[in-house]
Amino acid sequence: MTNTLVVEKAKTSKIQDVDFDNLSFGSVYSDHMLVCDYRNGKWEAPKVVPYQPLSLDPSAKIFHYGQSIFEGMKAYKDEAGDAWLFRPLENFKRLNKSAKRLAIPELPEEYFMEGLTTLLQLDKDWIPQNPGSSLYIRPFMFASGTGFHASPADEYKFIICTAPSGAYFSGKVKVLIEENYSRAANGGVGYAKAGGNYAGQFYPTQLAIEKGYNQVIWTDDNSHEYIEEAGAMNVFVRINDTLITGPTSDRILDGITRKSILDIANEEGIATEVRKISVHEVVEAAKTGELKEMFGAGTAAVISPISAFGYKDTDYDLPELQNSYASLLKKRITDIQYNRVADTFGWRYKV
Amino acid sequence: MTNTLVVEKAKTSKIQDVDFDNLSFGSVYSDHMLVCDYRNGKWEAPKVVPYQPLSLDPSAKIFHYGQSIFEGMKAYKDEAGDAWLFRPLENFKRLNKSAKRLAIPELPEEYFMEGLTTLLQLDKDWIPQNPGSSLYIRPFMFASGTGFHASPADEYKFIICTAPSGAYFSGKVKVLIEENYSRAANGGVGYAKAGGNYAGQFYPTQLAIEKGYNQVIWTDDNSHEYIEEAGAMNVFVRINDTLITGPTSDRILDGITRKSILDIANEEGIATEVRKISVHEVVEAAKTGELKEMFGAGTAAVISPISAFGYKDTDYDLPELQNSYASLLKKRITDIQYNRVADTFGWRYKV
Ligand SMILES: Cc1ncc(COP(=O)(O)O)c(C=O)c1O
Ligand SMILES: Cc1ncc(COP(=O)(O)O)c(C=O)c1O
Repeated sequence: MTNTLVVEKAKTSKIQDVDFDNLSFGSVYSDHMLVCDYRNGKWEAPKVVPYQPLSLDPSAKIFHYGQSIFEGMKAYKDEAGDAWLFRPLENFKRLNKSAKRLAIPELPEEYFMEGLTTLLQLDKDWIPQNPGSSLYIRPFMFASGTGFHASPADEYKFIICTAPSGAYFSGKVKVLIEENYSRAANGGVGYAKAGGNYAGQFYPTQLAIEKGYNQVIWTDDNSHEYIEEAGAMNVFVRINDTLITGPTSDRILDGITRKSILDIANEEGIATEVRKISVHEVVEAAKTGELKEMFGAGTAAVISPISAFGYKDTDYDLPELQNSYASLLKKRITDIQYNRVADTFGWRYKV
Repeated sequence: MTNTLVVEKAKTSKIQDVDFDNLSFGSVYSDHMLVCDYRNGKWEAPKVVPYQPLSLDPSAKIFHYGQSIFEGMKAYKDEAGDAWLFRPLENFKRLNKSAKRLAIPELPEEYFMEGLTTLLQLDKDWIPQNPGSSLYIRPFMFASGTGFHASPADEYKFIICTAPSGAYFSGKVKVLIEENYSRAANGGVGYAKAGGNYAGQFYPTQLAIEKGYNQVIWTDDNSHEYIEEAGAMNVFVRINDTLITGPTSDRILDGITRKSILDIANEEGIATEVRKISVHEVVEAAKTGELKEMFGAGTAAVISPISAFGYKDTDYDLPELQNSYASLLKKRITDIQYNRVADTFGWRYKV
């Protein structure tokens, strides 16, 4: 451990207030958080402190220019009570990739990894053991430096908070393939986990919810002919027995679940294709019955089967399958995450 | 005035610390600010309070999902010491247009207008009288409600801060016409003053600054063949004696300066065109000498003449003109703003 990491423990714990049998997603927070400040041109040593409000000047650039990025991870507890992370270095690398695009100074790896493990060790009791639950981990970075000039801030905060959480979606997901709005521009920030990418999705998603859908499937902003991804998930389509997902690009987040699913599918002998998926193709396959499954994949939502999609005022239902890829892949990935099977890929990381 | 607007005065003023002869842009803040909270489904009555830090939970959605919007206005002081706003209702309307796109609840007009005028009357001494200076006004709204679920917050804050300010750019501006990065997607949030639109520009702008430019001129994300706008300015091009600016769209901010300039130019008998401007056309006109002027137009930057533009590793200098449109239009608009001439358009608003 860096001998500079300071830990200030909470005087009392709030854990007895938490109903671990009825956890929603990301709405109660554990006793501690990690805080790291960027000042005078460098990241200062991280501190673990009691979870507490942040005090910021009203002119802090986070309020004005959306200079913020985040990550989403989970800690999983196995039957023996040991805690595990899933490919945490991938989240660290993506955080710095996002940082670069948003003109935020990159964070040293040891601040992230040691800060995270120290925090998790301290709040280990907050990692739920109930099936389907986990400790959602939210690392984020934002501009705390001040000024109304539209330019990068000179001060930043990196924080990790954690939240014992249940499922992101309750049940299967009905999606709307978007024809008007879009999530990301070519040459934009879509591939980064930038705060602004999410706020921009809220209004179109609300419109879809009003029409009876749970989620929007984004298409490219130019033609709306190609499927990109969902709110916080990459999208997979199974046509006959082939599992297809779109290629990542500067508009699409390079999801860790997505690439893990591709690896598992390959190992399982499932034919996979990474290529552009046209809306036309999906609609036609739905009509002929060749479209067997669609699902979203992401850390928060794990693997979320899609029950139906809407496109141009028509809904297309997906069949109920006995041997769905979604079920198989979800079982395989969660078995690895919760340390129920051997980890042949080397993805698990002991806290 | 709404009889609900509460004013809590600062005990001491910080005004004696301010060097009004050497004001930078937006980096010192006046004694008071307006704060308005959205809670339980409604905007509560605004309060004017001493300028002070904000306390927010680390899970407030502003830190995670970029759900924030802002406006930029100025208060101008005339020779008699009276204070003026320029088309403030336009800012109010645009704020609510942005709010809608970002799934933020719209604000009642009287909260904005009465809050603003009360604040300005109280901090009237902060409006500079020095030539070229003004009180920059920053209304902003952001998600203070909490949760890691990527969905709109249930609580928001609307705040107005003010900052006595000098020029946004020092001197003429050298711009780079962007070929790779972009600012906005079709169907995205480019037309809204959403925080995330600005953070996304920082990195490409830094790259341009490293190459010796001050600012990027954004092009469309699909072909990069058409000029859109600059960081916080709309762009005008003069070819021969015609003044041209691009049409607004869902990618481009509908600038108040831009439309005022069009009105003034029409009144001055200057031929104007609102149509797509191709990069090719601008480069060709620069080569033949038909490109007479380029300038940016926005509240912060007023009218900022462009001295040269770079495109595909070549720089194109713009001529020094005796009777430039930029100078004429800048004089006309600032004369109206500072109450130096009659306001035939009805744009001035007395504080
Ligand atoms: C836009 C977007 N796409 C995809 C994903 C899935 O990425 P990962 O599997 O790394 O969680 C996420 C969530 O993290 C996301 O925000
Ligand atoms: C992206 C963008 N374009 C143009 C403008 C100019 O708009 P206005 O003239 O209303 O200030 C601004 C600044 O306000 C802006 O942020």
